[in-house]
Amino acid sequence: MRILSGFSKLGRTEKLEIIKKLIPLNDGDYKLLSLFHENISDLDGPVMDLSENYISNFVLPFSVAPNFLINGRTYFVPMVTEESSVVAAASYAAKFWAKNGGFHTSIEGTVKQGQIWFTWKEDIKLIIKDFELLKEKLSSSVKHFLENMEKRGGGIRDIKPADEGYIFKGCKSIYVDFETIDSMGANLINTCLETMSKELVAFLTGRFPVVEPPEIIVAVLTNYTPRCLTECTVECEINSLESISGSITPRQFAVKFEKAVSIAENDLSRAVTHNKGIFNGIDAVLIATGNDFRAVEAGGHAFAAIDGKYGSLSHIELKKNKFIFRLRVSIALGTVGGAVSVHPMAGMALKILHMPTATELMQIVSATGLACNFSALTSLITGGIQKGHMKLHLSNILTYYHATEDERAKAAQFFSNKKITFSTVSAYLDSIRE
Amino acid sequence: MRILSGFSKLGRTEKLEIIKKLIPLNDGDYKLLSLFHENISDLDGPVMDLSENYISNFVLPFSVAPNFLINGRTYFVPMVTEESSVVAAASYAAKFWAKNGGFHTSIEGTVKQGQIWFTWKEDIKLIIKDFELLKEKLSSSVKHFLENMEKRGGGIRDIKPADEGYIFKGCKSIYVDFETIDSMGANLINTCLETMSKELVAFLTGRFPVVEPPEIIVAVLTNYTPRCLTECTVECEINSLESISGSITPRQFAVKFEKAVSIAENDLSRAVTHNKGIFNGIDAVLIATGNDFRAVEAGGHAFAAIDGKYGSLSHIELKKNKFIFRLRVSIALGTVGGAVSVHPMAGMALKILHMPTATELMQIVSATGLACNFSALTSLITGGIQKGHMKLHLSNILTYYHATEDERAKAAQFFSNKKITFSTVSAYLDSIRE
Repeated sequence: MRILSGFSKLGRTEKLEIIKKLIPLNDGDYKLLSLFHENISDLDGPVMDLSENYISNFVLPFSVAPNFLINGRTYFVPMVTEESSVVAAASYAAKFWAKNGGFHTSIEGTVKQGQIWFTWKEDIKLIIKDFELLKEKLSSSVKHFLENMEKRGGGIRDIKPADEGYIFKGCKSIYVDFETIDSMGANLINTCLETMSKELVAFLTGRFPVVEPPEIIVAVLTNYTPRCLTECTVECEINSLESISGSITPRQFAVKFEKAVSIAENDLSRAVTHNKGIFNGIDAVLIATGNDFRAVEAGGHAFAAIDGKYGSLSHIELKKNKFIFRLRVSIALGTVGGAVSVHPMAGMALKILHMPTATELMQIVSATGLACNFSALTSLITGGIQKGHMKLHLSNILTYYHATEDERAKAAQFFSNKKITFSTVSAYLDSIRE
Repeated sequence: MRILSGFSKLGRTEKLEIIKKLIPLNDGDYKLLSLFHENISDLDGPVMDLSENYISNFVLPFSVAPNFLINGRTYFVPMVTEESSVVAAASYAAKFWAKNGGFHTSIEGTVKQGQIWFTWKEDIKLIIKDFELLKEKLSSSVKHFLENMEKRGGGIRDIKPADEGYIFKGCKSIYVDFETIDSMGANLINTCLETMSKELVAFLTGRFPVVEPPEIIVAVLTNYTPRCLTECTVECEINSLESISGSITPRQFAVKFEKAVSIAENDLSRAVTHNKGIFNGIDAVLIATGNDFRAVEAGGHAFAAIDGKYGSLSHIELKKNKFIFRLRVSIALGTVGGAVSVHPMAGMALKILHMPTATELMQIVSATGLACNFSALTSLITGGIQKGHMKLHLSNILTYYHATEDERAKAAQFFSNKKITFSTVSAYLDSIRE
């Protein structure tokens, strides 16, 4: 094969010329790819500079879920997702809970951790003995990086050494806790850790000049953030569930809901999809606000396996006449820095959310996750999720086949009791178009 | 609070009017929100109909990573991500491995599972005794839904009952295995399960009329898909690592790389971020091709905890002079149906990938995940990830402050050895603008 060199340094048109040699693109393709600079040039710089080798746009709907009452304040929650039912699900639960006291959220903190992993064949005791001095050296080596964060009340909170000889001979680590306040802090933490690594090597080499010097393996933050824990609770009288309990009584609904949550707490296969539904809501808000959803997904799912068995992130309690539903999940995010500050629509999302702090946004995100979970479970236990899904599915397929408003109305009627697939809808449209 | 009703049924302009009452929007905000229909109306229908309550667009860069040699074929891999370094990381690894034999991938299968959870107080033996008949009934109840899938070689593969009394009294389940071929199949599986649930109730009620009838709790597919396992391997002579081993020898690089992977295999905090880096690549291709990344994230992270301890999804083997690096992760996706078929840019992404089958796309996705992981580890063990990250970070900040080309060049020079934050860059720009 011919390996391309310097591709990233070419202009967009040149890149497309090269791609065209491998993949035949027609006029329609070109037009689609060119929605890029011809039409939304206002976004060109800010959005496109986010990534290398961009050749076009990928557009997703920017939606809002109304009626979110969170800690007494009402929000339109901005959501970006490709999954038809997610915003509808969030809105459904938001409206129900707005009438029933809303979402109550709290956070445990915003401490994130970094790790310096290194090999040093000497005894960890030699490090522990002098640790106060080393700690001071490590802290002062990054003092200038942390000035701004310290002004905002953040900074280093703790530094601890550990022997990790169980991984391989000589393996050791230093854990550093950072309070990052309103920024996600990944870049800053990594910069600090890399600087501290150099200081660590200098310190140990200076202190123990006759032994083999330490070798830094990796120095990097972790996205496992159990101390960025958010808790979101909704609570109502069981009788208040009447408006959504369908053909069963509110009490039957509550008991069935409890069983559904128990299954997700205990069964791995069910837990995965249950939690996936929570992240449908979480990720949609994270994307809308320019946050890194991979980080939150990774940390959140690992948190779901925290006791050695992967299980549900949400839990239920039926106490006398009370229905109490709760989500506990780690969410590390920022409202300044990174794509959050660069992407104009992320700025717009924050504006729509009344410019929240990071801890406020964590709570809004967790409420959205719980809302999606509540709606999904409600659908599942009252006749299945497919009724709502299939309505949206039909709409998507009709769009694909360029159905008119009239055809849409007819199709909605026709498919109300029939199976909806690309081929059945296509056949139906053919029949009414003839 | 005043609860909004019928919001989703309003037109976009009416929705904005309502939002405006709560959040003051200025002319700039309106212009930004209106990039929606004024300028990219070609995408309006297909993209916007994906979600309820859309009021604008969210645009992400659609990029390509060149030089991906996968199973002997070269690809430009389409990626959509907001994280600056991801496409660069994928491209870096792709180019290196293109010179060293490329990515070799295989898949174990594409079987997905659905579950019907129900309460039935009788002994599971009564179900097992008649299970062949019940199985036949359940299968025939969904025969008409599966016609197309069976034509493509798919369909139901297995149906099994289980006693789940450990969760709550009377809890039972039926597992149904589906081969979905090229579609993700979520909608179809859910439709089948809901139909089968009704059949199950009818069967047990008819068979055992004098006992309490079964109550369906939930009937839904699971995103835990260990049988949609993909494996991707890269392999080279250790000496071939010379071009990327930096200031250490290829052998030292290989050993250090092995240590870094061991740490991620053993330490939870490191594993989470290690895997997050894999999903940086996986999700970017999933989004570009219109797939549901929450499903793959949930299934993949649960798979990482499959043996009761969350660990690295990638593994390394140094065998004599060989460096062998491998990713094993479950990836369930589709190349037909859902947003994949509706979103024009997802169609474009598939076109750029030579219209892959679902199993081919699974393999491309896994190669991209492994590529990102390889690049991240390479950066981490050869001087840290911040050098590359901070270059991109600087570029983002300069964009934010509307820096000219000249200012960019000056800033690149100035910040080559200084800390890069919004405030330092802002101060520097002020100083040169004065």
